[in-house]
Amino acid sequence: MSATSNRRMVILTDGHSNPLTAKTACSVLRYCQDEVVAVLDSQAAGQTAAQLLGTGGNIPVVAALDAAPEAKTLLIGIAPPGGKIPGHWRPVILQAISRGMTILSGLHEFLSEDQEFSAAAAAAGTELVDVRKNSETDVANRIGLRSDCLRILTVGQDCCVGKMVTSIELTRDLIAKQHQAEFVATGQTGILIAGNGCPVDCVVSDFISGAVEKQILAAQDHDILCIEGQGSLAHPRYSAVTLGLLHGSVPHGMVLCYEAGRKAIHGMPEIGLTDLATLKDAYESAARLMMPSQVIGIAMNSRLLSAEQAEEERKRIREQFQLPVCDVFRHGPSELTAAVLELKQQIQG
Amino acid sequence: MSATSNRRMVILTDGHSNPLTAKTACSVLRYCQDEVVAVLDSQAAGQTAAQLLGTGGNIPVVAALDAAPEAKTLLIGIAPPGGKIPGHWRPVILQAISRGMTILSGLHEFLSEDQEFSAAAAAAGTELVDVRKNSETDVANRIGLRSDCLRILTVGQDCCVGKMVTSIELTRDLIAKQHQAEFVATGQTGILIAGNGCPVDCVVSDFISGAVEKQILAAQDHDILCIEGQGSLAHPRYSAVTLGLLHGSVPHGMVLCYEAGRKAIHGMPEIGLTDLATLKDAYESAARLMMPSQVIGIAMNSRLLSAEQAEEERKRIREQFQLPVCDVFRHGPSELTAAVLELKQQIQG
Repeated sequence: MSATSNRRMVILTDGHSNPLTAKTACSVLRYCQDEVVAVLDSQAAGQTAAQLLGTGGNIPVVAALDAAPEAKTLLIGIAPPGGKIPGHWRPVILQAISRGMTILSGLHEFLSEDQEFSAAAAAAGTELVDVRKNSETDVANRIGLRSDCLRILTVGQDCCVGKMVTSIELTRDLIAKQHQAEFVATGQTGILIAGNGCPVDCVVSDFISGAVEKQILAAQDHDILCIEGQGSLAHPRYSAVTLGLLHGSVPHGMVLCYEAGRKAIHGMPEIGLTDLATLKDAYESAARLMMPSQVIGIAMNSRLLSAEQAEEERKRIREQFQLPVCDVFRHGPSELTAAVLELKQQIQG
Repeated sequence: MSATSNRRMVILTDGHSNPLTAKTACSVLRYCQDEVVAVLDSQAAGQTAAQLLGTGGNIPVVAALDAAPEAKTLLIGIAPPGGKIPGHWRPVILQAISRGMTILSGLHEFLSEDQEFSAAAAAAGTELVDVRKNSETDVANRIGLRSDCLRILTVGQDCCVGKMVTSIELTRDLIAKQHQAEFVATGQTGILIAGNGCPVDCVVSDFISGAVEKQILAAQDHDILCIEGQGSLAHPRYSAVTLGLLHGSVPHGMVLCYEAGRKAIHGMPEIGLTDLATLKDAYESAARLMMPSQVIGIAMNSRLLSAEQAEEERKRIREQFQLPVCDVFRHGPSELTAAVLELKQQIQG
């Protein structure tokens, strides 16, 4: 699930160090802590990553690259609205390039298409890695999928509800329980964490299912694939991405993810959410057009709730759906893991 | 529905003049006959377009560009598997460029990214138009859609069943009946016919619904939009395109298109078709995630059937679905037109 060698990263969040804007930084700190040397925020130097961003333990926050001479990678740690690099970051990025550091970015605006950065990188002989950049042009063929490699896709009520985190936590728990499981990354943060993957939202529409299928074929030497979901079938902007991923990965089972307390589509406050029961049906019907598949559990993101409220919500959803329900952080993923293993037994019969 | 000025086209099909490979040529001959000066096929010079391709009336087939001095556009008339230009076409295309003709192409491989063609076009000051090329980067917003502009989307059991043709025939019939209708093109051939449109299958997945919405907003000065559908919700390769188009265009009604007698997915003979009843439910459920919408009629492509078989099939499907059913060529589209106008009355109260 992690990159093959230690990337020794400095994560750049300078001036944008809050958990929402710096979501990428937080996820990489959470899941690749051993590979992070420092967080760069000139206004917060001296703090720890945990103090600044709520995760990352004692990793130091530094004011400048010079404070991390051992670093060999600079990671752009934010996903700003509009996808543009803040102007005052340019000198830091150029300094990293001139030091020969690899630059890692998940932005929609590609560093490698920025004239100043690409000229500097060419001169320094270093690499600008835009994880969203791709040139996928293969269609899906539905040939060669291993029937006994269990594919579990996270699906959601909306964006930003915890699909990536659920897939990763499931994978880790399965591995801890001695199963050959693999996290399959499909979005920029997942790819930064896994060290590989396919940025499906940036693939040309005709080729999204093909790009996903290629990734599944490459990963199915494992027994269980936990595939990172994207968007929602009910999202007015991104439902095409969701269906391309669903039909490209033809999952045996799905985990439905939602955030308790959310009322409207993320970023579209005037558009209400589709209820979970309707969505469960929608995912199962859409999946069935390719292969029968069921929602086997529900991942509840309860960050807006107190412990007591979370218990009530969990009980309510359990009763409504008669399925395992948990917040993978609050309760751990073991109920979902058990559902995955039960399905594995069924398909391997 | 047609381009604003006469493009005076020569359609290049040289050596590939059969109705399947030259699908683009045939559709343009059918719907833009007034704009076509000649078909170029050196092996068939002297015939008429109708003799060579089954449509296009007395438009001459010529052996070389010199036989059509009045032409000002060269249209690449085929969609070859793999999307590559046949090698022996290059001299003809270069000759057209040097004559100052505009080159129109719907291929996946862009002429404007071919070094030889783009250098020649720059020297001649002429234009290479790749209708599939786009740089869409806007997401859908669901703001500003006219509630009393009726949106009708064709949806299908598969690719290549007649969705574009159904949308065009409906539009023409509505216009003939004095309605303000517009064909909204979403694929390369539709765009070549309409003179504008959005090649949705070539848009990056995150932006497909946004690109469609933009097109709808631009066209809704008309009262009825007949939107060209793409692919199928049950297509293993292209379902993402279909859903992005469905959710970007939020249709009030849909016309379900199929080819009688087809058994398997076009180009994937090992994958059987999903039955029409299941698909009707799938389209209505998927549409309902954004806005209630129903299949209001069925367009049957009966080219594989005799007249008698077609009548039997029509009767059978009518009884099964209790909906208008017709082959828009064999029976004309008037039953579907009536269903559209009935829905128009409903939404406009």
